[in-house]
Amino acid sequence: MDAKTQKSELTRAAIVGAALDLASAQGLESISLQAVADRIGLSKSGVFSRVGSREALQKAVIEEYGRRFLADVFVPAMQKPKGLPRLDEIMQRWIVRMRDVEVHTGCLYTAGAFELDDREGELRDLLHSEVMRWRAALRRTVAQAVEVGHLKPDTDPEQLVSEVSSLAIGLLHDARFLRDPRAAERAVSTWQRLAKSYSA
Amino acid sequence: MDAKTQKSELTRAAIVGAALDLASAQGLESISLQAVADRIGLSKSGVFSRVGSREALQKAVIEEYGRRFLADVFVPAMQKPKGLPRLDEIMQRWIVRMRDVEVHTGCLYTAGAFELDDREGELRDLLHSEVMRWRAALRRTVAQAVEVGHLKPDTDPEQLVSEVSSLAIGLLHDARFLRDPRAAERAVSTWQRLAKSYSA
Repeated sequence: MDAKTQKSELTRAAIVGAALDLASAQGLESISLQAVADRIGLSKSGVFSRVGSREALQKAVIEEYGRRFLADVFVPAMQKPKGLPRLDEIMQRWIVRMRDVEVHTGCLYTAGAFELDDREGELRDLLHSEVMRWRAALRRTVAQAVEVGHLKPDTDPEQLVSEVSSLAIGLLHDARFLRDPRAAERAVSTWQRLAKSYSA
Repeated sequence: MDAKTQKSELTRAAIVGAALDLASAQGLESISLQAVADRIGLSKSGVFSRVGSREALQKAVIEEYGRRFLADVFVPAMQKPKGLPRLDEIMQRWIVRMRDVEVHTGCLYTAGAFELDDREGELRDLLHSEVMRWRAALRRTVAQAVEVGHLKPDTDPEQLVSEVSSLAIGLLHDARFLRDPRAAERAVSTWQRLAKSYSA
């Protein structure tokens, strides 16, 4: 990569990062080329030349969020042994991420879901497929934990995935809206109880 | 109440109902006196004379939602015996309500929470206090179930309330955003497992 391409890549990353901050604070619909340009001191046409339309930028934001989420929650857990240790690592990391929502500028998956739930279109479809991809990864992790004998053989991975997802969404609600300082502690208890009740 | 006062009450109820529909579809911030006036064929000044400012109307919407929610989920359950039967009735009704979100035009508590979580002001405070009121009612119901010996004596009502709240919020997410037709069925399983694990 030459210096010019590298600089252009960095500028694009800065644009997407600024748009992600904006979306996390005020929703995906708050993204506009002008608002992002203002945030990083570029012209609107400068932003357009690098990311294209507003909708293309919104999509880039969802994809970037997905990358960061997986890099934070899923990828490091792959270093743990298959089965419950890996699932437990994912849950610990997910809970910390939801607790530290301010640091991570909110959870775009959840905020986006409640923003777009009653709309139609490509943006909703993209967010939906990202969330489903994450749930599929979780389901595989649960299925592995059953295969290696850590979880009961009659465990329904779909059911357990929906339970841990609810736990994470509920934690986000309690930490961010209720501002309950004990929300993460309770989420850990919930996960421990869940893991115990599904353990073989 | 004379005929004129009665008509005026009905008009006010129609205004608040239309604003609630609007808020459920597009968020509390989408409420404007003009948009509500257009929906029910009144003038903007006619709306203002009955409900006052936009902010007063937003507050009236949150209060109206709270009344409907309690009337649907909590009030009928009071006819069940204290303890687990009452808690179970609440949970069954809550799950049905979250499943039938279209009929109930969404859940303003949850959508509002994710809309207002990072803002400050009277509207957020009101929504917060309504949600806390509902959680307090749930906590009392759980505490009664412990007192009458249906739930284990070491049950932490705060913990169980956060678990069933997460269940309801997660169900809303799965039913309304993922559009998963099995979401309610899984929520029922989750509740049954929860109730069993906390039962004395």
